[in-house]
Amino acid sequence: MATVSPTPLLKDELDIVIPTIRNLDFLEMWRPFFQPYHLIIVQDGDPSKTIKVPEGFDYELYNRNDINRVLGPKASCISFKDSACRCFGYMVSKKKYIYTIDDDCFVAKDPSGKDINALEQHIKNLLCPSTPFFFNTLYDPYRDGADFVRGYPFSLREGVPTAVSHGLWLNIPDYDAPTQLVKPLERNTRYVDAIMTIPKGTLFPMCGMNLAFNRELIGPAMYFGLMGDGQPIGRYDDMWAGWCTKVICDHLGLGVKTGLPYIWHSKASNPFVNLKKEYKGIYWQEELIPFFQSVTLPKDCTTVQKCYIEISKQVKAKLGKVDDYFNKLADAMVTWIDAWDELNPSPSGIKSAELPNGATK
Amino acid sequence: MATVSPTPLLKDELDIVIPTIRNLDFLEMWRPFFQPYHLIIVQDGDPSKTIKVPEGFDYELYNRNDINRVLGPKASCISFKDSACRCFGYMVSKKKYIYTIDDDCFVAKDPSGKDINALEQHIKNLLCPSTPFFFNTLYDPYRDGADFVRGYPFSLREGVPTAVSHGLWLNIPDYDAPTQLVKPLERNTRYVDAIMTIPKGTLFPMCGMNLAFNRELIGPAMYFGLMGDGQPIGRYDDMWAGWCTKVICDHLGLGVKTGLPYIWHSKASNPFVNLKKEYKGIYWQEELIPFFQSVTLPKDCTTVQKCYIEISKQVKAKLGKVDDYFNKLADAMVTWIDAWDELNPSPSGIKSAELPNGATK
Repeated sequence: MATVSPTPLLKDELDIVIPTIRNLDFLEMWRPFFQPYHLIIVQDGDPSKTIKVPEGFDYELYNRNDINRVLGPKASCISFKDSACRCFGYMVSKKKYIYTIDDDCFVAKDPSGKDINALEQHIKNLLCPSTPFFFNTLYDPYRDGADFVRGYPFSLREGVPTAVSHGLWLNIPDYDAPTQLVKPLERNTRYVDAIMTIPKGTLFPMCGMNLAFNRELIGPAMYFGLMGDGQPIGRYDDMWAGWCTKVICDHLGLGVKTGLPYIWHSKASNPFVNLKKEYKGIYWQEELIPFFQSVTLPKDCTTVQKCYIEISKQVKAKLGKVDDYFNKLADAMVTWIDAWDELNPSPSGIKSAELPNGATK
Repeated sequence: MATVSPTPLLKDELDIVIPTIRNLDFLEMWRPFFQPYHLIIVQDGDPSKTIKVPEGFDYELYNRNDINRVLGPKASCISFKDSACRCFGYMVSKKKYIYTIDDDCFVAKDPSGKDINALEQHIKNLLCPSTPFFFNTLYDPYRDGADFVRGYPFSLREGVPTAVSHGLWLNIPDYDAPTQLVKPLERNTRYVDAIMTIPKGTLFPMCGMNLAFNRELIGPAMYFGLMGDGQPIGRYDDMWAGWCTKVICDHLGLGVKTGLPYIWHSKASNPFVNLKKEYKGIYWQEELIPFFQSVTLPKDCTTVQKCYIEISKQVKAKLGKVDDYFNKLADAMVTWIDAWDELNPSPSGIKSAELPNGATK
């Protein structure tokens, strides 16, 4: 039997979302893995600029004018001059799964020297269950050659559906500006051959560089917030999405995996520019983490949308006093859900479909 | 500078505890790493049998007669005909750190083919902090070449003291009897180059095969329960200790690490024998996990002993109805603490010393 499957996994059920301000030459390296899939390119910055996409890729491209046209006044919830704009791509997709990647990310090699098909690994992660209720010391129990260890309750071995697959980065690690400044030469060379579920009740720093998710299960929580142009903060777009997403996954009994696959992150961003974008976030996150650790969602929040609206209310009530920015952000969260539901009407006409297993665990 | 330190780390501050029923030939392979340290050998089974220890090791050996002599009537809390007896060694040690290993565990090799000094890695794990309050996606942030990633709150980067280092096993994985029966040929060949903190609030299956801990910080919680001879259950000794330990570490703000180092686990135990030992545990653990997940310790439990006594009360109150065994176990937990305090009087005469940072987080 062939080791490469003739039809790429989920070929017609997954969109690749790429935010960019430049020509997408980086796709050349990804051609063997990405070409079968549909791309959604979200062009940031000057909409009059032409973004060149290598031949042979199937794509749709949205610039700021397109975003304004599609969303009208609701376009205010989509960030400008910040890669947070990528979440517009999640909204206009019609597919069940999303993979999003930055345009400075290239194909990494595994320790044997083989090119890593990051997308394929993400799909495997998303298609196999998560185990958020108890830690398995041999990591992902569903991988070949692994299982649940002695002492793992049998009632928990079925796992729960995986909503998010968070991939990592070789070469340039995803550090904040202070760490970049202190360790300018640090490179991530350690290939950790693991995938694991982030336990229920534990928050993590979700990086948007190399990220896949099940849009049907968690899509409306993947809002990347208000960043960049006109905002007091940047580089917290994916973090914000990650905190909201994790809280909602925990509430709805969905799983978040992290670990493999790696991509090769080619270029460190400018730490001085980053510091300017981040400094308020570095201060605010000391309030944000306790906030998200203490968020509880009522039982009647049985859909991602309902959960998200509830979080937006708590953001306004509890973080509004940290800075007025969070009042604006809370409003934008509501606008985002309105826009999501407008672009993604459920077939039955019910605004937000109940999950089959929406019961909280 | 030499890469091998001339004096082994913590040479006079760590005991190696080995439960056994046979000659300790396995130590030959460990000689380069273990010989500088003191061994505490706990001989299980027939006390008239002579256990041969290879030349040149510094050790003390206790058989059942010794245990009875040292503990008198309190010896009832130490299991017989089960490796759970190893916890007697934790009690009689006078050192700050313990490493315990099974006598069917050999030196494993890392992917480069180099012998792994498991003890040295455990010591490194114990000497560097843990991060139980937030997940770091690049695993242990204190390792060379790693750090905290973007989005990790700065206030949490100091970490907390590490109480436990849980190591893993190449070759024969630590599976329960049903999994052994279903997958008799499965071998763990995946070397995962990671160490991580098990997050606060998350339980894990702690295996006693390759385990190190800070006796001063958590020793009294490392009771391996009533197993083996005269008991309805086996192979849950380390699990029991792990659940109690994790709950107490979470309460006291201490860390538990898992991952590296690997040892080479040479021989699968008999799955039919294991099934007989385990089957009640497999059933009971479905009640035990929710129990331990819901244990809360009051604020005035500021020492491990106080926490442990409180857990014993809750075991009696809530698990006694599952099976009368848990009433016996709860009593044995109290006996264990009495015996611990008798053998380990604090210098000031106060029975259980307050931790410097005993405040709960």
